[in-house]
Amino acid sequence: MTFIRLFAPIRRLLKPMSQPLVLSALAQFAAKTAGRNMTRVAYVAVTVGVATMILLTVAPVFEAAHFWIGMVLWLCLVYFVFEWLVRLRHMANQGRLRLYVFSSSGVVDGLGALAVPVALLAGVEPRTAWLLGVLWVLKVVPGIPGLRQLRRVLVIESGSLLSVLVIFLMVLCLGSVAVYFLERDVQPQTFGSVPQALWWAMATLTTVGYGDVVPITPLGRLVAAFVMISGLGVFGLWTGILATGFAAETRRDNFLKTWDSVSKVPFFAALGPAAIADVTNVLRTMDLPPRTMIIRKGQQGDCMYFIAAGEVEVDLPGKKVTLGEGAFFGEMALLGNSLRSANISTTKLSKLLVLDLVDFRLLMARHPDLAETIDTEATRRALENK
Amino acid sequence: MTFIRLFAPIRRLLKPMSQPLVLSALAQFAAKTAGRNMTRVAYVAVTVGVATMILLTVAPVFEAAHFWIGMVLWLCLVYFVFEWLVRLRHMANQGRLRLYVFSSSGVVDGLGALAVPVALLAGVEPRTAWLLGVLWVLKVVPGIPGLRQLRRVLVIESGSLLSVLVIFLMVLCLGSVAVYFLERDVQPQTFGSVPQALWWAMATLTTVGYGDVVPITPLGRLVAAFVMISGLGVFGLWTGILATGFAAETRRDNFLKTWDSVSKVPFFAALGPAAIADVTNVLRTMDLPPRTMIIRKGQQGDCMYFIAAGEVEVDLPGKKVTLGEGAFFGEMALLGNSLRSANISTTKLSKLLVLDLVDFRLLMARHPDLAETIDTEATRRALENK
Amino acid sequence: MTFIRLFAPIRRLLKPMSQPLVLSALAQFAAKTAGRNMTRVAYVAVTVGVATMILLTVAPVFEAAHFWIGMVLWLCLVYFVFEWLVRLRHMANQGRLRLYVFSSSGVVDGLGALAVPVALLAGVEPRTAWLLGVLWVLKVVPGIPGLRQLRRVLVIESGSLLSVLVIFLMVLCLGSVAVYFLERDVQPQTFGSVPQALWWAMATLTTVGYGDVVPITPLGRLVAAFVMISGLGVFGLWTGILATGFAAETRRDNFLKTWDSVSKVPFFAALGPAAIADVTNVLRTMDLPPRTMIIRKGQQGDCMYFIAAGEVEVDLPGKKVTLGEGAFFGEMALLGNSLRSANISTTKLSKLLVLDLVDFRLLMARHPDLAETIDTEATRRALENK
Amino acid sequence: MTFIRLFAPIRRLLKPMSQPLVLSALAQFAAKTAGRNMTRVAYVAVTVGVATMILLTVAPVFEAAHFWIGMVLWLCLVYFVFEWLVRLRHMANQGRLRLYVFSSSGVVDGLGALAVPVALLAGVEPRTAWLLGVLWVLKVVPGIPGLRQLRRVLVIESGSLLSVLVIFLMVLCLGSVAVYFLERDVQPQTFGSVPQALWWAMATLTTVGYGDVVPITPLGRLVAAFVMISGLGVFGLWTGILATGFAAETRRDNFLKTWDSVSKVPFFAALGPAAIADVTNVLRTMDLPPRTMIIRKGQQGDCMYFIAAGEVEVDLPGKKVTLGEGAFFGEMALLGNSLRSANISTTKLSKLLVLDLVDFRLLMARHPDLAETIDTEATRRALENK
Repeated sequence: MTFIRLFAPIRRLLKPMSQPLVLSALAQFAAKTAGRNMTRVAYVAVTVGVATMILLTVAPVFEAAHFWIGMVLWLCLVYFVFEWLVRLRHMANQGRLRLYVFSSSGVVDGLGALAVPVALLAGVEPRTAWLLGVLWVLKVVPGIPGLRQLRRVLVIESGSLLSVLVIFLMVLCLGSVAVYFLERDVQPQTFGSVPQALWWAMATLTTVGYGDVVPITPLGRLVAAFVMISGLGVFGLWTGILATGFAAETRRDNFLKTWDSVSKVPFFAALGPAAIADVTNVLRTMDLPPRTMIIRKGQQGDCMYFIAAGEVEVDLPGKKVTLGEGAFFGEMALLGNSLRSANISTTKLSKLLVLDLVDFRLLMARHPDLAETIDTEATRRALENK
Repeated sequence: MTFIRLFAPIRRLLKPMSQPLVLSALAQFAAKTAGRNMTRVAYVAVTVGVATMILLTVAPVFEAAHFWIGMVLWLCLVYFVFEWLVRLRHMANQGRLRLYVFSSSGVVDGLGALAVPVALLAGVEPRTAWLLGVLWVLKVVPGIPGLRQLRRVLVIESGSLLSVLVIFLMVLCLGSVAVYFLERDVQPQTFGSVPQALWWAMATLTTVGYGDVVPITPLGRLVAAFVMISGLGVFGLWTGILATGFAAETRRDNFLKTWDSVSKVPFFAALGPAAIADVTNVLRTMDLPPRTMIIRKGQQGDCMYFIAAGEVEVDLPGKKVTLGEGAFFGEMALLGNSLRSANISTTKLSKLLVLDLVDFRLLMARHPDLAETIDTEATRRALENK
Repeated sequence: MTFIRLFAPIRRLLKPMSQPLVLSALAQFAAKTAGRNMTRVAYVAVTVGVATMILLTVAPVFEAAHFWIGMVLWLCLVYFVFEWLVRLRHMANQGRLRLYVFSSSGVVDGLGALAVPVALLAGVEPRTAWLLGVLWVLKVVPGIPGLRQLRRVLVIESGSLLSVLVIFLMVLCLGSVAVYFLERDVQPQTFGSVPQALWWAMATLTTVGYGDVVPITPLGRLVAAFVMISGLGVFGLWTGILATGFAAETRRDNFLKTWDSVSKVPFFAALGPAAIADVTNVLRTMDLPPRTMIIRKGQQGDCMYFIAAGEVEVDLPGKKVTLGEGAFFGEMALLGNSLRSANISTTKLSKLLVLDLVDFRLLMARHPDLAETIDTEATRRALENK
Repeated sequence: MTFIRLFAPIRRLLKPMSQPLVLSALAQFAAKTAGRNMTRVAYVAVTVGVATMILLTVAPVFEAAHFWIGMVLWLCLVYFVFEWLVRLRHMANQGRLRLYVFSSSGVVDGLGALAVPVALLAGVEPRTAWLLGVLWVLKVVPGIPGLRQLRRVLVIESGSLLSVLVIFLMVLCLGSVAVYFLERDVQPQTFGSVPQALWWAMATLTTVGYGDVVPITPLGRLVAAFVMISGLGVFGLWTGILATGFAAETRRDNFLKTWDSVSKVPFFAALGPAAIADVTNVLRTMDLPPRTMIIRKGQQGDCMYFIAAGEVEVDLPGKKVTLGEGAFFGEMALLGNSLRSANISTTKLSKLLVLDLVDFRLLMARHPDLAETIDTEATRRALENK
């Protein structure tokens, strides 16, 4: 019964899809989807698919809208299968089929496309089979912005993290055996075996503390107190390690992202390598879509901008001035006049380098020549604008 | 019935308010309230209003004092409406009406003034309508001291925080579907659908652990253990990211606050830019109201002070010496004599720059000329005081 | 009945105490207790007193040993009263009575001495009155080693911590009103008023999560999820702020402690101020009681020691060499020979400065002259020892 | 009955073990096990032994497989006894018997070998006696990679950590006495004595929050709220201290590990000590087993490698080039060409020093001569490879 109800949509779905117009649109779309990791459509499909899968398990909702739920799930599945096939062909054309299939993103794509159909064909109850749709969320992983950074932290600090994990497991074992020994006669239902005590120790060490299993003898509670404090310690160590690793990684990441842009700005190119490294350390990159307002007239300003790529338009009274790659603006904010004197916005996709007031001052202290150059340019510009 | 009881106070309230004396006092007050963000009265109104609103929901208290509760709530509301209107007029006069209304503080002011009346007019049960008074707490937001700093951290680290959030959601989905699958037959009441399992996963991942929904099958508990450990990891990453961001922001903020004051002290003006940056990095600013004791005779001292603005009075035996902007005092503590030799207090609102012993020593190591200047001045002063 | 039972010991106690021999011993002890903050006896009294007070509340233990419990409590109380009176006289003699009485340690001493007697005299049930003995734990506060450091962190970061607290309270208010609104009809027992909802919100935001009050409607749970995640955020900010502050404070504290010792070592005195600051940054101080083994022959070594105060004895084959203030030893470990070649122990209370291998290498890189001096001395010593 | 069932395996076990062939194999194995701390066999024995001990407490599993469980436990125990005896003999031969027996690893080995047999001989019920097998997990401790680092952090920060612990205990005492006083009449079952209140306070301060004991009076809940917030504070301080300590320790540890390798690379030997310290600070060491692929042709590269020990093979088209100790490779990735141009793998156990792009750039800024040397070598190599 349920089985049939969930399969009904697929038949309705296949009919319009086989028409030539739809097929050619799909071909165009396929070209797009093959190259990049996650298209916007894929994000929507993952979100909608997983949300629908969750609704599927809510009995009243399913009763009321089983057709639509089935339809959406099948649509998502068809999309993921389609995406996978397109990528397989694309990779096969480039001779990287094998590399792709066994790469992490290939495995995730394959799982997303095959898990549910295979389960359905294997005769698993459909509502259970669709639960495998949760694997679709894994497709989001490669698109997470700071993932590379996170992974590096985990790899570099793996030694320390492992140590903490071992200590965690040791406290877990010792604590649960001790509490099992102390509580088993008083609470045979909840502390009747070490695995049950382990469950308690786990919830306690991680400070989750469900309270479904709780020691009641004085000695058992004393052991529990030690386990709790150990939990705080483990937590603190864990956080300390990750915080340490993250601080280093963030600095490094920012340096890498900024370095390439800095070398494109002629203004910095004249500096020696020591100054460039200093400058790179304090600049932040900013990617802006076209027609974005960067500076609003009359606002307080505390930074200046260098254009690494793209173009901005300065909206001066009576005329519009265009600044291209390598130019800078907003320097008046750093030279004493904190009110912005004109609107400035991008005209195309631009990459800007932002220099904050604090860093400007620190930089000027170490490289006074930089200050002079900016000063000269600012004076020239002020005269020109009069 | 309740409706009428809650409206009764407003009539009593309006009568005295329409008298000419009250009206002129209000006008004076209005001038004050228009410019600044939060007057002291506003803080009191928010605190009293929200506290009363909370009391309103406690049945016995409401029964006993419904008149006074209504009175206070109406008073607060009237104040917020009045404040909003005054600001609207003030902004209209300055031609910034539109900017204000759609600014965050304008929206918050508008919500505080309109939410409850609109709800009352829309026929919502009064005791429910007054619950919207909780929105008044939002008026406090712009007055939070470190908010700008917090926001900058969140913006700059948004990439990393988002990554952690995505990982968090992914573990949430995978964990809850797995536990739903494993527990649904054993506990259909509590794990009967994925949303219910999500609720469990949420309480577990955040280490809240209510214990109202708990897996009981061995496999379910194993999955739960993984979710718990992931919770620790997510927590650690989150903390690590925020700690990293905060360290940078605190340094930057202190630098900005101090820089302007440093440049006003002639003592530092003679230094080169590199030394000024160094000095700025180690000084702390301190704002003191008039007639505040800074140094108490006979106390241990471990810092010296520079006067960036204001004036202090040194209470020497027999005479009182006044030190103005740019002067410094307390330097003996850094030159070997750690007991303060006189009482020193401000005569007006002053801004002091504090130099700690540690930083003084580090500074002296890098800029020995600074040490000499302070030494010379101290000797001169010691001779003078004899 | 209970009253009399608890007062019985005092009579027995007073008898032996009034004998002349005991009185003179007390006078001697008083001289000791007046000056210092916490004598070893005081620590014992606090620990024993509080532990006994806790036992007093356990019905079976009290029944079994009410005499001894009463005896111990009275003894502790008598001690604290005695200590307070001695200190009062001591301070009165020094003319600092008023300063002491209103200082924090004076208030704590006074509370410890008077709270229980006053409560007993006021007719409070004795077993309840003795609960005030818990105030004795406050006497430990001034003796906590890192307290000054902790307080400085809290003061300096107070702005940021306050911001987080305000955000915490705001989330608390908004979350609890929202959940009260959503749950009050379904769970009138547990969410019948905003204060009850506040209790839930508190337990959730701090991730304690008792589970005695839990939202059950889908919307209520959604709000709860936001409150939980905010809890993680608040936690992270809090930790981040404290971690940042602590890092700075630890460095500063170490610098201060080491600086004075460094200036006493003639070896460093010859260095310029820049080098001294560098050296101070990397040394650690170590206070050792007399007759402590510092280096054991044959052990691996990774640091060298400078004697800032005290004396050590090198146990060379056949003779014993004594090294006094300003000397250094263990330098071979840093110059390539990592096995210690002799036992070295202190002969009196000594303060040593420890230089680790890592820091030695970094230091040598910046101050090669230091390396030479150490090298020359080591060679001279090696020749001498042959 | 159970007793006999658990002893049955030992008889069967001893028979095959007494055969000469087995005895000689054991002798060979003994030689191996004596020197090192944890052989791979020991790790397996600990894991299997503890897991089996846990299974022993699960009634149905024990019923079904009591023979095999007993067998495995006896095998593990025999192994640990054997290991201990071998080590005792080994140490006795080296004259360090006493040192070993009372060292931490000696005590752990002794406990692992003797605890269970002694308990069995003392007539403890066998299933209870075997619980002592949990002590075997302690054998893992000396093998934990980052342990030394963790211990140093704990030692150096012990002052601060102790302060936090004292604050923790003080809040615990004050909070539990206050809540006991407020709740004892309302909930005599759960708050009938201070120890019971302490149990609640412990679970609350550590944010575990079981919920088995919860205050219900308004005042009790207010005190509980303060305890909860203190819990957050204690947690934050703890984490902050550990994070601070860890950051310093990680830097130091990396420096120590790298320094020795750096001095072996002739390329760096020519540098002055300042440059060597700089280089050591940014390099990471990497230990690789033989025949490991380091660089894969066509991959993106962002680091170069120096060979501190071992040998690598470059798989160039048509020939294979071997690079030995002191050579470097992968430098093209840092000089602009980010695609790796050849496969490179180790031929024997090698220690490599990794220089990341970021650090390379920072290093070049400070030591331009280094850049030139690498550049020259890269050009020479490129010509050679043509």
